[in-house]
Amino acid sequence: MKYEVNDPVRLTDDERAILAIDQTLLPNHVAYIRLQKPKEIFDAIKNMQVRGASCIGIFVAYAMFLQAKVLAKIYTDKEHFYQDLHKFAKYLSTARPTVMDLPWALKRMERTAANNMRRSFDTIVEAMRREAFQIHEQNIRTCFDIANYGLTLINDGDGVMTYCNAGALATSRYGTALGPLMLGVKKGMSFHAYVCETRPMMQGARLTAYELLNAGIDTTLICDNMAASVLSGHKVSACFVGADRVAKNGDTAGKIGTLGLAVLAKHYRIPFYVFCPTSTIDITCDDGSKIVVEERDPDEIKNEYFKSPIAPGEVNCFNPASDITDAGLITAIITEDGINYPPYDFN
Amino acid sequence: MKYEVNDPVRLTDDERAILAIDQTLLPNHVAYIRLQKPKEIFDAIKNMQVRGASCIGIFVAYAMFLQAKVLAKIYTDKEHFYQDLHKFAKYLSTARPTVMDLPWALKRMERTAANNMRRSFDTIVEAMRREAFQIHEQNIRTCFDIANYGLTLINDGDGVMTYCNAGALATSRYGTALGPLMLGVKKGMSFHAYVCETRPMMQGARLTAYELLNAGIDTTLICDNMAASVLSGHKVSACFVGADRVAKNGDTAGKIGTLGLAVLAKHYRIPFYVFCPTSTIDITCDDGSKIVVEERDPDEIKNEYFKSPIAPGEVNCFNPASDITDAGLITAIITEDGINYPPYDFN
Repeated sequence: MKYEVNDPVRLTDDERAILAIDQTLLPNHVAYIRLQKPKEIFDAIKNMQVRGASCIGIFVAYAMFLQAKVLAKIYTDKEHFYQDLHKFAKYLSTARPTVMDLPWALKRMERTAANNMRRSFDTIVEAMRREAFQIHEQNIRTCFDIANYGLTLINDGDGVMTYCNAGALATSRYGTALGPLMLGVKKGMSFHAYVCETRPMMQGARLTAYELLNAGIDTTLICDNMAASVLSGHKVSACFVGADRVAKNGDTAGKIGTLGLAVLAKHYRIPFYVFCPTSTIDITCDDGSKIVVEERDPDEIKNEYFKSPIAPGEVNCFNPASDITDAGLITAIITEDGINYPPYDFN
Repeated sequence: MKYEVNDPVRLTDDERAILAIDQTLLPNHVAYIRLQKPKEIFDAIKNMQVRGASCIGIFVAYAMFLQAKVLAKIYTDKEHFYQDLHKFAKYLSTARPTVMDLPWALKRMERTAANNMRRSFDTIVEAMRREAFQIHEQNIRTCFDIANYGLTLINDGDGVMTYCNAGALATSRYGTALGPLMLGVKKGMSFHAYVCETRPMMQGARLTAYELLNAGIDTTLICDNMAASVLSGHKVSACFVGADRVAKNGDTAGKIGTLGLAVLAKHYRIPFYVFCPTSTIDITCDDGSKIVVEERDPDEIKNEYFKSPIAPGEVNCFNPASDITDAGLITAIITEDGINYPPYDFN
């Protein structure tokens, strides 16, 4: 695995910890945190220091490798090793319940361990090391393929509205929803990106605006409630968004606010595209009604990022991390396998 | 004029200045500012220390009276008096270009001055004093009438979504869009209010949540991008919003984000009601395309209220203060004259 400067997660050179960009500090500080212990790793996901469906998948793959290495030194019997490894995977899987790439990567790492059950600890750990790198490398190729497919959906000079952050920070390189813009710019094209700030955690303002500006793309930041105003003004030819989990029928759990944007796009007859690797598709889930939506701390709405509380302390908040966009509102779902149009039936 | 504790603007006892609640400091501090000089008065409107269409109307009515009193002491000839008074009105009218109640109140005060042209300065000033009080008192009655009409649109126990702040702080008492809830609660009814925080200036989180909690109403604060999630969940039987300016055909300029909420309400078949006094209706304006939308400082999006900048400093922002909701998205417009259903044709 060859890392690049902006990879949001990587193993340390001694392969005893994970280095991750603390995404809560961007765009004001580019700081790496070193994560090693189970609780540190869990909290980094929970607190969104490490975030973005694919990025979380890569992160927990490395975490499983590190944990296997630790457990292999503690135990002499495989039974306890596998039990503890499974416990660790289960623990991590609860950090962000809606994100499909989290259990997907954990299961892949557990399967790798199980497939090598009869071999030595060294062999098991080495297999898991290779699997983690492979998950990371695969995601880079996947994002590149997604970007290429996505680029066929827009033209040079187009206005594109994007939501939350589905860029390199959320994945490995290129990103998913931002991939077509990144790739297009490399090919000499130009775009006008409209970035929704994405309350309450501001991934659009903090991360997407930062990534697009760094790539030299003409970027306009708006508050989420300004999207209707922009879409009604004929400045945007497509909306590009990421996903947390896609059901078999195409219903899509995405960052909270994605649903609202999809409804607006439909009203203004603007194509609405969802970008994700196939690892985000949950073929065991028939439709959106079965997806568990994470509800987060009201403090994110009332206090996080603010100088002083922005609302009365005693007010109730409803703070879902995701919402479910009906498949009927989605023009196409773009994966590394291609552009999928409705009716969706993933398997 | 008998003031009450929570009136957002009032004359000082010596009638030489205006006392106004600094609405940018709520809900953390309830502080009154004393305003006297033209620039202080202009800035208080511009900076949204004094805000809300009706409240701005009342505020500038008092400001015109105070200015007339000052000018009457400076000039001996009426011509200069009227010239300067007109100049002052013109100056104030540019502070918030979309808000209809601003020129409406200024014109009413100028007309009062003009009607008394041949009388003494004392008489002119006294007539303007009475007119300012009348504008204030009239708004209280108007809001009460609007609240009564609005209350017929909902039932005890209903969920109501509201946007920005159209409460007592935005008017005088009761408010417009919040009036039905306030009045209903006084009659022993109960409601579940869903309050959109209203980026970037957070009037929903800071002001509406504060007012509703004070009134003992069950209140849930959400980010603007969570509205679709709530509306799709069958928890809300109506959306209640205010307005900055309503065109003859019912197209409505409201706080930025109102349009998006109207589109969502239509998608989910939830009635969408606009509340405003007739003073907010601009019968000289045929439709929404003729309404000037104020664009405000990008700093409101990137810096205001935040501990540290929430976006890269160099990113462009689009920060319209209002958007235009097509009349076709509005179920009814409620004024002190009654409930107006489409097709709208105000005159």
